[in-house]
Amino acid sequence: MDAHLIDSAVFGHQWSTPESRRLLAEPARIGRWVEVLAALAGAQAEVGLIPESAAAAIAGLRDRTWDGAAIEAIAAGTRRTSHSTLGMIDVLKGALPAEAAEWVYYGATVQDVTDTAQVLEIRAVGRLLWRDLRRIEAALLELARLHRDTPMVGRTHGQPGSPITFGFKAATWADEIGRCLDRLAQGRDRWLVGQLAGAVGVLGFFGSAALPMQQAYVGRLGLAQPPISWLSTRDRLAEFAQVVASTVTALARVANETYALARAEIGELREPVADGTVGSITMPHKRNPEVSEQVVTLARLVRSQSAVLTETMVGEHERDGRTWKTEWVLVPELAHYALAATAMSVRLVEGLEVDTDRMLANLTAGGSASSERLLSVVSVRLGKHRAQAALQEAYRVARSRGIAVVDALDLTEEEAAELDRVHVGAAGEMVDRVLARAAERRDALGEDWA
Amino acid sequence: MDAHLIDSAVFGHQWSTPESRRLLAEPARIGRWVEVLAALAGAQAEVGLIPESAAAAIAGLRDRTWDGAAIEAIAAGTRRTSHSTLGMIDVLKGALPAEAAEWVYYGATVQDVTDTAQVLEIRAVGRLLWRDLRRIEAALLELARLHRDTPMVGRTHGQPGSPITFGFKAATWADEIGRCLDRLAQGRDRWLVGQLAGAVGVLGFFGSAALPMQQAYVGRLGLAQPPISWLSTRDRLAEFAQVVASTVTALARVANETYALARAEIGELREPVADGTVGSITMPHKRNPEVSEQVVTLARLVRSQSAVLTETMVGEHERDGRTWKTEWVLVPELAHYALAATAMSVRLVEGLEVDTDRMLANLTAGGSASSERLLSVVSVRLGKHRAQAALQEAYRVARSRGIAVVDALDLTEEEAAELDRVHVGAAGEMVDRVLARAAERRDALGEDWA
Amino acid sequence: MDAHLIDSAVFGHQWSTPESRRLLAEPARIGRWVEVLAALAGAQAEVGLIPESAAAAIAGLRDRTWDGAAIEAIAAGTRRTSHSTLGMIDVLKGALPAEAAEWVYYGATVQDVTDTAQVLEIRAVGRLLWRDLRRIEAALLELARLHRDTPMVGRTHGQPGSPITFGFKAATWADEIGRCLDRLAQGRDRWLVGQLAGAVGVLGFFGSAALPMQQAYVGRLGLAQPPISWLSTRDRLAEFAQVVASTVTALARVANETYALARAEIGELREPVADGTVGSITMPHKRNPEVSEQVVTLARLVRSQSAVLTETMVGEHERDGRTWKTEWVLVPELAHYALAATAMSVRLVEGLEVDTDRMLANLTAGGSASSERLLSVVSVRLGKHRAQAALQEAYRVARSRGIAVVDALDLTEEEAAELDRVHVGAAGEMVDRVLARAAERRDALGEDWA
Amino acid sequence: MDAHLIDSAVFGHQWSTPESRRLLAEPARIGRWVEVLAALAGAQAEVGLIPESAAAAIAGLRDRTWDGAAIEAIAAGTRRTSHSTLGMIDVLKGALPAEAAEWVYYGATVQDVTDTAQVLEIRAVGRLLWRDLRRIEAALLELARLHRDTPMVGRTHGQPGSPITFGFKAATWADEIGRCLDRLAQGRDRWLVGQLAGAVGVLGFFGSAALPMQQAYVGRLGLAQPPISWLSTRDRLAEFAQVVASTVTALARVANETYALARAEIGELREPVADGTVGSITMPHKRNPEVSEQVVTLARLVRSQSAVLTETMVGEHERDGRTWKTEWVLVPELAHYALAATAMSVRLVEGLEVDTDRMLANLTAGGSASSERLLSVVSVRLGKHRAQAALQEAYRVARSRGIAVVDALDLTEEEAAELDRVHVGAAGEMVDRVLARAAERRDALGEDWA
Repeated sequence: MDAHLIDSAVFGHQWSTPESRRLLAEPARIGRWVEVLAALAGAQAEVGLIPESAAAAIAGLRDRTWDGAAIEAIAAGTRRTSHSTLGMIDVLKGALPAEAAEWVYYGATVQDVTDTAQVLEIRAVGRLLWRDLRRIEAALLELARLHRDTPMVGRTHGQPGSPITFGFKAATWADEIGRCLDRLAQGRDRWLVGQLAGAVGVLGFFGSAALPMQQAYVGRLGLAQPPISWLSTRDRLAEFAQVVASTVTALARVANETYALARAEIGELREPVADGTVGSITMPHKRNPEVSEQVVTLARLVRSQSAVLTETMVGEHERDGRTWKTEWVLVPELAHYALAATAMSVRLVEGLEVDTDRMLANLTAGGSASSERLLSVVSVRLGKHRAQAALQEAYRVARSRGIAVVDALDLTEEEAAELDRVHVGAAGEMVDRVLARAAERRDALGEDWA
Repeated sequence: MDAHLIDSAVFGHQWSTPESRRLLAEPARIGRWVEVLAALAGAQAEVGLIPESAAAAIAGLRDRTWDGAAIEAIAAGTRRTSHSTLGMIDVLKGALPAEAAEWVYYGATVQDVTDTAQVLEIRAVGRLLWRDLRRIEAALLELARLHRDTPMVGRTHGQPGSPITFGFKAATWADEIGRCLDRLAQGRDRWLVGQLAGAVGVLGFFGSAALPMQQAYVGRLGLAQPPISWLSTRDRLAEFAQVVASTVTALARVANETYALARAEIGELREPVADGTVGSITMPHKRNPEVSEQVVTLARLVRSQSAVLTETMVGEHERDGRTWKTEWVLVPELAHYALAATAMSVRLVEGLEVDTDRMLANLTAGGSASSERLLSVVSVRLGKHRAQAALQEAYRVARSRGIAVVDALDLTEEEAAELDRVHVGAAGEMVDRVLARAAERRDALGEDWA
Repeated sequence: MDAHLIDSAVFGHQWSTPESRRLLAEPARIGRWVEVLAALAGAQAEVGLIPESAAAAIAGLRDRTWDGAAIEAIAAGTRRTSHSTLGMIDVLKGALPAEAAEWVYYGATVQDVTDTAQVLEIRAVGRLLWRDLRRIEAALLELARLHRDTPMVGRTHGQPGSPITFGFKAATWADEIGRCLDRLAQGRDRWLVGQLAGAVGVLGFFGSAALPMQQAYVGRLGLAQPPISWLSTRDRLAEFAQVVASTVTALARVANETYALARAEIGELREPVADGTVGSITMPHKRNPEVSEQVVTLARLVRSQSAVLTETMVGEHERDGRTWKTEWVLVPELAHYALAATAMSVRLVEGLEVDTDRMLANLTAGGSASSERLLSVVSVRLGKHRAQAALQEAYRVARSRGIAVVDALDLTEEEAAELDRVHVGAAGEMVDRVLARAAERRDALGEDWA
Repeated sequence: MDAHLIDSAVFGHQWSTPESRRLLAEPARIGRWVEVLAALAGAQAEVGLIPESAAAAIAGLRDRTWDGAAIEAIAAGTRRTSHSTLGMIDVLKGALPAEAAEWVYYGATVQDVTDTAQVLEIRAVGRLLWRDLRRIEAALLELARLHRDTPMVGRTHGQPGSPITFGFKAATWADEIGRCLDRLAQGRDRWLVGQLAGAVGVLGFFGSAALPMQQAYVGRLGLAQPPISWLSTRDRLAEFAQVVASTVTALARVANETYALARAEIGELREPVADGTVGSITMPHKRNPEVSEQVVTLARLVRSQSAVLTETMVGEHERDGRTWKTEWVLVPELAHYALAATAMSVRLVEGLEVDTDRMLANLTAGGSASSERLLSVVSVRLGKHRAQAALQEAYRVARSRGIAVVDALDLTEEEAAELDRVHVGAAGEMVDRVLARAAERRDALGEDWA
């Protein structure tokens, strides 16, 4: 079906990526379940719970593709039994020789399969995020390096203020993305943990073979063994969602700034435009920052999903359908939006058009650039608080008389000369510090996440 | 695709309904757009802006079905131009005779089409919600009537307290759903308003024909004309989402109470079970309140969507892609979840199993039922605050000695007799008041919403 | 104490108002409780449950002021008993003659007092909101009227587009605030409802006198009688919070637009500045839109509170401390922020500085103003879709060659003449429609809310 | 004032702690600002920007107490200038000798002071949280150890299922809190970073002395130097809030479980009751889990604050009042609620009453305990899926005939014997694993946070 916008042929590309759709489509989901069940059977054979031949037959199911007919059979069984995995089990049994059929899904519960498969999903999503974020970080670092000394207006409260450099601004972006990468790296070992808990978490079905079997099972999937079952202990997932939400929100800050600085009246940045793009039908001159807007939108949605996934940490007892199932819908949704946002951000920051002339022109235009520096210079003579009062008054007079602020001040020649120079303070040095730290971290963290 | 759980063949039925999927699938969305464009062309012909023959040809497009090939062509055009409706326009032009092709989408902007189509969607969703909520209200009123005098434990802070009746409880549910219906009724005229705004809201394209054309356009769609364009004035939509969120949350209260009272240790309510349902594979005895759980889950999601749709009321200028597009994904999502929740709630409340024996047994068991009434009676003799202290002490003594509270009190015979009676106060009268008010309202509001 | 920013002497004025602080301070809260208890005693005397003299003595407590010592005694009792009202009851008993002391708080439960007092609070808050919103609506309508024909740039996606008028923009604000007033009016009768429910809602303590007593009680407070107790039926409160959240968010849209249009590079609006204001110490030239920023901030907080108050509609059984107490802290907090936001918005919109020269200059500057109109005119000759393509190409050529778009087009003389005119379409008529509708509504709704 | 519930003498203790109120009261806030300014002056003297004597005089201000009159003067100045720190500066200048007065707040901007002071606040709050969480973790570990083998019913979907041990449950709590401690430890170095950024972040005021001065400044406060200013880079704060939200929500899970298991119908846990507590006036027998309820409530609020603090990561330019000021109110509020929740949780888990008899009785009562184990045993004979079907049918028959499930099954003697034993699977081993891991971590992390 195409009843959700993610599955729309027309609009899905704005809310997901080809990778996210492939990864999270139904056949892939069923494939992950089968992968989990194969690992389970393998581990059970390893500790002697089920025949090796059954495990081998079950492992063979991984090569199947789960096309329309199989999915429809699974779906029909699911709806008939109102049980989340019984439909699939029946189909798998039907695909197995009789002697293996009794051993598939042996002693497992729904959540063993879905939780572990969800962790595999998170791992796959995390790898893609990591790859794209590394690219974004690299592009931002390059912008910081390239524009280390490109002066532009600093703005506070939406109003022009003292000068900064564009490299400084880009470095604050890179610095923030860098910390997001740190968090992804630090959280990984907490998140990539398998689940094999049985009915209520203590694996009562399996007797003394339980924990060795569990260890073999998670090992086959490349996951860690949890110290204890986590059926209703969901902080790991909440943390993953929070880290992703912060990360996408950090990207949204870049996008939102691009939107603001791309205003025609400012014109300092422009997002790249693909060939063939039509800005507006009714206003043919328009060139809209649509990618930037969409990243801001996606971040809003990811934050909302993250908030719900933190709320659902409060599950009751050993399993709580009122909280648990929320993850089923929100984790893939969050993955789609986050991956769409990072993919768009890659395009945005790698193709960002920086209009350095306009930056300089805006800096000169307002006469605002020098006020902090002027204050600094006059402070030497008058003391800082007196200088502040003198300048505040001079600006008031200048505004009311329509004259330049220098003409409303009694400046020494040296002080006046300060007005012609653009002082960007420690901008360059701060950029250098960010670049140095990032270089270290990028080496330490490596290309691959997990 | 089936990359969102709503579109999953296996699980989609838990997050949507057949109706919601049909209504919100891509072909239906495109169909609504065409309906809007046909109304636009009709109105434009009416005021003489375009030829009647063109309008007739465009109206004819409504009979087309938008199958795979057409959708793929629309999708390709959308991706190529990065423009939300240009792909569709090209396909529509291709489907029209040359002399009509230039007149489709004449002077309109994306948001004219999508906003108006979204209102049509809301109208369709609202009608289904209304229908289901009326059924739910009726079932709850019937439960209230039937169990007007069925005594059960009242519980506060999770602890048994004085008695109520189950009809009283059901009447508080019906009362709340009744107010939700009132809100849907009151909001309707604010929500069912068309959009025809042009590039920036003032319809500059059309000259003096603008407002008469707008009136004809909305009239053809059965919508009201807004006093002014609402491109970035989104309170209507936020209100709709809030009302739906409150409504589904009111249903979640019913579901959550069912979950709690269905605990085996309490056993007063049970949700109906469809034939063939398998509660648990690993624990064959289980009978889980899964519908109740899912309604609680769905309400959580709808609230989160509603919160985002209120946040996005703060759009900038005459259109803001950072806020507006959020609606594209959230409004249909909210509709799926809300309609799933109401459909499940219909089943839940119409089939709710009420164990009146267990209710009575629980009431007698704890000895708690009578404490408020006992207090009332002893208060007559001792004054209320002294009585309160005496009873509090008696309960302490009774607990510590393992005796009944009556044996720790110095009661008169009359007072002791009170302990054998169950007093449910004004429960029945309150039920009657709710029934009377609901009867009035149901007549006044009628079967159909809009 | 001053451990919350609302209670800070230094910063409290940014997060509350003198009125909100007075209304929601501890003495006022206790005063409302006493008012409720006096009404209860009065009603109980009326139906013969307690002596008239006791009721009169209790009514007399309303004249007391609840100063430091009394509050400290109440607080000590509250902490000692962990009971929310017992501390107060003891203090009240101590202030009453012995024969009246037993009759205060007779048969009531904490929630009877706190819920009813909360409704009184909502009534008081609603009145203040209503008063301020009416002023804001009036100021916005006046701006709409005054600038009905003042042309300015319309902006979409942050980019200049076709012209609108400032009156049109102001009218969209007024229109939205108008609907907020409608919602406040429609919700009032649902919200201003008293609570007298007893231990579990059925008033088991009182016997057959219960409902007549309840009616007398709410009547004395000017509230309506609920059809049924609403101890854990909280949709009313959630709705109130949602309506306030939408309202403050509508104000935030005005404030946010002011922030954006006050950018030095745009300069079309400026918020009023009080004498003595210092924009920035380090940058003496700055003039920051701080009121606008704060309104946006306050709206964010109110939305968050509203979302929680919707979430807490899912309370369990007949009272649920996990949801109910949330209201205790959030309802007054929401009131502070909402009243601060409306008070600031009154100042903002009544003193808003509109720079019509700058509006006109910006309109001319970009050459963007005419593109929609140009399209309209050329469409007559070429057909709309061909015209769109021709203009899109002309803009591309003009940009790449650095020439004006008219020089890249083959226009007829008549078409060229269109470029010199500013067409604002139906802006004025839409303003008139909003003014007319508002005039009607303002008469219908009246000066006072409740 | 006492217009916020945190500052209420009567109720403040439920929403804050004596420590949090002291730490976050106005005098303490001003004290932190002065501490920051003293460090700034010290650093400036160190690098030769201001006279040593001025720095010494400014350092002396730290010994002042900021009582009513001083605060009122600061407040008056703040309101007069609408500037956040000018009121304080004037008071500080008045308290300094003339030659030092010009050098206080030299070249700093509001955010330098407030951000750095906020980090000091976070450090203080973090220390208290760490201390309490360590105590909570210890108590939970002790419960896990003590009840390693105490059997009780495991529950899923609110329904009794296979047995677990209470130690297993407690160990899942401890395990989760342990990860919360890990996150606090890992985040610390990201969070405890000073701010000295000047007007727009580049410290243009100070020339080449800027970064050495910055280093000296943060060093004097025991904070780290940021690689780059973070005026609108707020991921650190968002992360802190998220970690606190997850932590308090983990506590809420414990509290919510206590609430559920304290239901009279279950009776397995009871929260400790302080002497003098009155459960209910109207129902004298009641013993309400009020601490548990309040922890759940507080967690809800903290999550909501955390969500807003993530949203406000999207600030514009070099400072954005629409996002930044949100922190002013939410960070202390979050601290109050989090510290109240941890303080209450200490009491809850250290005094938790565990009714092991009731646990055993509930386990036996339902006959549900053995279904998973029975399935396991019968599976050996029948194969698992046939066994599952046989048991499901037997339970159906047993329920309909009102007989025990064993009488509806054809069991071997050995199989029947299984029904009398309670199998808790790997519960004990899992507890051991959690204990071992926690012991390691507790050693590694240490008693103090920062």
